[in-house]
Amino acid sequence: MNATIRDSKPVHYLEDFAVGQKYRSTRLPVDAAAIKNFANAFDPQPFHLDEEAARSTFFGGLAASGWHTAALTMRLLVESDMRPAGGIIGARGEELTWPRAVRPGDELEVETEVLEVRPSGSRPRQGFVKFRTTTLNQRQEPVQVLVMSLLVERRAVPA
Amino acid sequence: MNATIRDSKPVHYLEDFAVGQKYRSTRLPVDAAAIKNFANAFDPQPFHLDEEAARSTFFGGLAASGWHTAALTMRLLVESDMRPAGGIIGARGEELTWPRAVRPGDELEVETEVLEVRPSGSRPRQGFVKFRTTTLNQRQEPVQVLVMSLLVERRAVPA
Repeated sequence: MNATIRDSKPVHYLEDFAVGQKYRSTRLPVDAAAIKNFANAFDPQPFHLDEEAARSTFFGGLAASGWHTAALTMRLLVESDMRPAGGIIGARGEELTWPRAVRPGDELEVETEVLEVRPSGSRPRQGFVKFRTTTLNQRQEPVQVLVMSLLVERRAVPA
Repeated sequence: MNATIRDSKPVHYLEDFAVGQKYRSTRLPVDAAAIKNFANAFDPQPFHLDEEAARSTFFGGLAASGWHTAALTMRLLVESDMRPAGGIIGARGEELTWPRAVRPGDELEVETEVLEVRPSGSRPRQGFVKFRTTTLNQRQEPVQVLVMSLLVERRAVPA
C-alpha cells in the first residue's frame, strides 16, 4: 500500500452512490504457499493444506479456504476505486457463496455493483449502501458472491 | 494441529445432526500484532493498522477486520467437536454481522447451533446443515453472527 497514491483517489459519500454503479479491481494471484499459509493459521483442514490429502476429498485437489477468498476479496476492494467515506465498514451481509473452488495459480479480481442506497433511519450522518461483490478467477468464473451493506458517511447533515 | 488427536474425535454424518444441537469451542486470544498482521495482508485500512490513526475513525481505536474475526471463527470451529463428515464445507451463508468490534486483548470463543437439517434434492450422498455460529468475546458479548449452511455427507445411500 502506498498511502499517498491511495489518498489521492476521490472518496465517495452516501450521496455519490447510485444503483447500478460498478467498480472493478486489479488482479491478485494466489499460489499454493499462500493457500497453505492461510489454512495453517485459520482453516487447517486437509483439502486446504496438502495436495495429496486433498485428492480424496470433496474438492479433489488443493483448494483455498472460502475465508481466504473472502479476505483476498476485501484486499482487492480496499485497493479499488470504490472508496466509501469513512472506510469500508461492513454492516450486514445477506449472501455469501463460493460457487467454484480457488486453485493454486488462479488470479482473482473483483467486480462490485451498487444494489441499494439508503440513509440511516436513526443516524443522520450515516447511511447504507448494499453491494453485490463478485470475485472472479482468470477465466471470469465466479468463485465468490457476497451481498453486503456497508456503512457510509453522508456528505451533509439535513437541517 | 495434532492430526492424531483430531482424528480421534467422532465425525458426524447428516443423520447425526438435529435441530437445537449446540457446540462450543475453546478460547483464542487476539492481540494488536495479530490484528495488524491480518490487516496488512488483507484489509489495510487505518482503523485496523494503527492505534493513533484509528482514534478519529468510526471505531474510535484499533479494531480487528471483520474478515479476521471470520477467519478466527473458522479456526475455532475446525478445532471444535462439531465435525461434519467430509469436513467443514460452506455451501451458503445468509447472514453475517459484526455487532461489536474485536479489540486487542479480546479472547474469542464460538457457539454454534443447528437450525436446520435437510438432505440434498439432487445428490443422494449429501445434505445441508444450517448453523447459527455466534462468536463471543470474553464478556460473552457477540462480535460476529454467521448463519451458514454446510455441505455434509450422509451415512447411508437410500435404496
